[in-house]
Amino acid sequence: MIRTIYSENGAVCILNQNLLPAQVTYECVTDFRDLVRAIKELQVRGAPLIGVTAAYGIALAMDQAPLSDEEMDHYFEEITNSFASSRPTAVNLFWAIDRMTRLFESLRGRAHQDIQQRLWQEAENICAEDIATNQLIGEHGVPLLPVGARILTICNAGALATCGYGTALGVIRSAHLGNRVGQVWVCETRPVLQGARLTIWELMQDGLPVRLITDSMAASVMQQGQVDAIIAGADRIAANGDTANKIGTYALAVLARYHQVPFYIAAPLSTVDLMIDSGQGIPIEERNPDEVRQLGGIYVTVPEVAVYNPAFDVTPNSLITGIITEAGVIFPPYREELLRLKGE
Amino acid sequence: MIRTIYSENGAVCILNQNLLPAQVTYECVTDFRDLVRAIKELQVRGAPLIGVTAAYGIALAMDQAPLSDEEMDHYFEEITNSFASSRPTAVNLFWAIDRMTRLFESLRGRAHQDIQQRLWQEAENICAEDIATNQLIGEHGVPLLPVGARILTICNAGALATCGYGTALGVIRSAHLGNRVGQVWVCETRPVLQGARLTIWELMQDGLPVRLITDSMAASVMQQGQVDAIIAGADRIAANGDTANKIGTYALAVLARYHQVPFYIAAPLSTVDLMIDSGQGIPIEERNPDEVRQLGGIYVTVPEVAVYNPAFDVTPNSLITGIITEAGVIFPPYREELLRLKGE
Repeated sequence: MIRTIYSENGAVCILNQNLLPAQVTYECVTDFRDLVRAIKELQVRGAPLIGVTAAYGIALAMDQAPLSDEEMDHYFEEITNSFASSRPTAVNLFWAIDRMTRLFESLRGRAHQDIQQRLWQEAENICAEDIATNQLIGEHGVPLLPVGARILTICNAGALATCGYGTALGVIRSAHLGNRVGQVWVCETRPVLQGARLTIWELMQDGLPVRLITDSMAASVMQQGQVDAIIAGADRIAANGDTANKIGTYALAVLARYHQVPFYIAAPLSTVDLMIDSGQGIPIEERNPDEVRQLGGIYVTVPEVAVYNPAFDVTPNSLITGIITEAGVIFPPYREELLRLKGE
Repeated sequence: MIRTIYSENGAVCILNQNLLPAQVTYECVTDFRDLVRAIKELQVRGAPLIGVTAAYGIALAMDQAPLSDEEMDHYFEEITNSFASSRPTAVNLFWAIDRMTRLFESLRGRAHQDIQQRLWQEAENICAEDIATNQLIGEHGVPLLPVGARILTICNAGALATCGYGTALGVIRSAHLGNRVGQVWVCETRPVLQGARLTIWELMQDGLPVRLITDSMAASVMQQGQVDAIIAGADRIAANGDTANKIGTYALAVLARYHQVPFYIAAPLSTVDLMIDSGQGIPIEERNPDEVRQLGGIYVTVPEVAVYNPAFDVTPNSLITGIITEAGVIFPPYREELLRLKGE
């Protein structure tokens, strides 16, 4: 199994995903600011993994915490603020920070070393739970797919976006274990090419029948009747089921509706943000225009051209056939069921 | 004005579009096989320009024609077969070859030098007519656009795809001369990036307000209500109006329908192929998978991954708001009007 993150001898080691698939390189760091930078620069990416990385990063940082309670509180807040400002859209980041913060607050007054150990343990727990959650997502998703299913996906909602197994790719993995997968169409996912670089690499390692296309080819493949289902991950799901995910996901949802192809979101409940009523409230990160202007560090267009580079788009709930979670598949209308499953 | 092709001292000179926008390089050749290769390798591209290049190439080749009538006929056929097999989808290629062939046949028995001169003249005529045709397309398209129009386009149906002025970009150019253009959204157009490399370069030279996006962002821009019209070129239009154009065009047409944005095709009547009844009959070129696997000659994915790489897709007539031609704008149903305008 691919490991995306782990702790070793007081360091946090991450697989640098910017170097994939050409190089499989782990980088072990002892300064939490290196993890903040790794999130910003997409060395670690994928909504669940961003959350786990922040959890590990908080534990790592607290190894250097000052001794007095007051100073420690202040320091903890600084750390969590650093992680909270690393990327704006994936809510799992804030969910993991909240979980670490609640634990930290419950430990107030305990011995320094005890607090440190418990924070490390919590990060490990979040990581382990993530894998178990993804396996449940996979199981719940399988019955939605026909035998020989031709599934289309975008970006990487896989083992590389999580602590292992993946969300959208978890469903595909579970279906493959049951011999139900005929073909996986992988959209390359411009501008950062997570589909071409990460999903292709990850699925080929497991022997899945993948085929790479540019994002602009998905419509043509659907027109030819060669797609039975689309499964995408999510960076944030609003209370009404509207879903933010990698730019290009919304286009696939519209195309799926036109071609009568079911369109599923696969995500853990930690991706659901009940504080946001609809997709309009989800903050959408805009990234460096050079991601679009350049390929491999070389300009492919006029260098000073104006660019629009949103990292995500929002798919309205009306275009989502179902949301596959660890607690089961949810169908529209989503609001009541999301509220019930989040237990709030 | 950008020149894409011209003849000089018995050579044919082409702008090598694979080097744009970094380098503006003209290559002058005296062997017609270099032009066949230039078409195959996309140094010259764009349906009308492919046709013009074949016309010049035939004239160029005939400068070395054997002297006997019988040998010359055989030689002419070899040349036209070479060009006809260079690329399968753009019908302007076959239209130009037919036009040169009809002229050649009408000149049978004439002096060698006379034939050669007339073939050169015909190539020049086709090129000059192309520019005039595009200016008419531009004029006819303008009234379709509101003042301040925000227009989205894909690939390069511009001066670089023709002898000058362009088809889809001809309409945008004419609208710009009338101060009607608020924004031009340019899809980068993977895999070969004609939007990012060519359209951006061409339109920035004329001072148009361009903004570059990846193909996957077009839906999001439409969702935000920021597109008033889509204008694309065409590689072949069937008798019923179904249109083959650069891969990704069909997706835009579906997205346009969903967002109630008008979707126009701009093309000369030489792009209409009455011999093909519907889009299903249009041959779609599949190109080298490395176009998708590589960027700038470097693999961005697992090098041995399976790829689907169609260069074109077909947009059904039902999704096309209108076809802008040099004879005026045609609205559905297309069949009768196309038949009338082609005068057959």
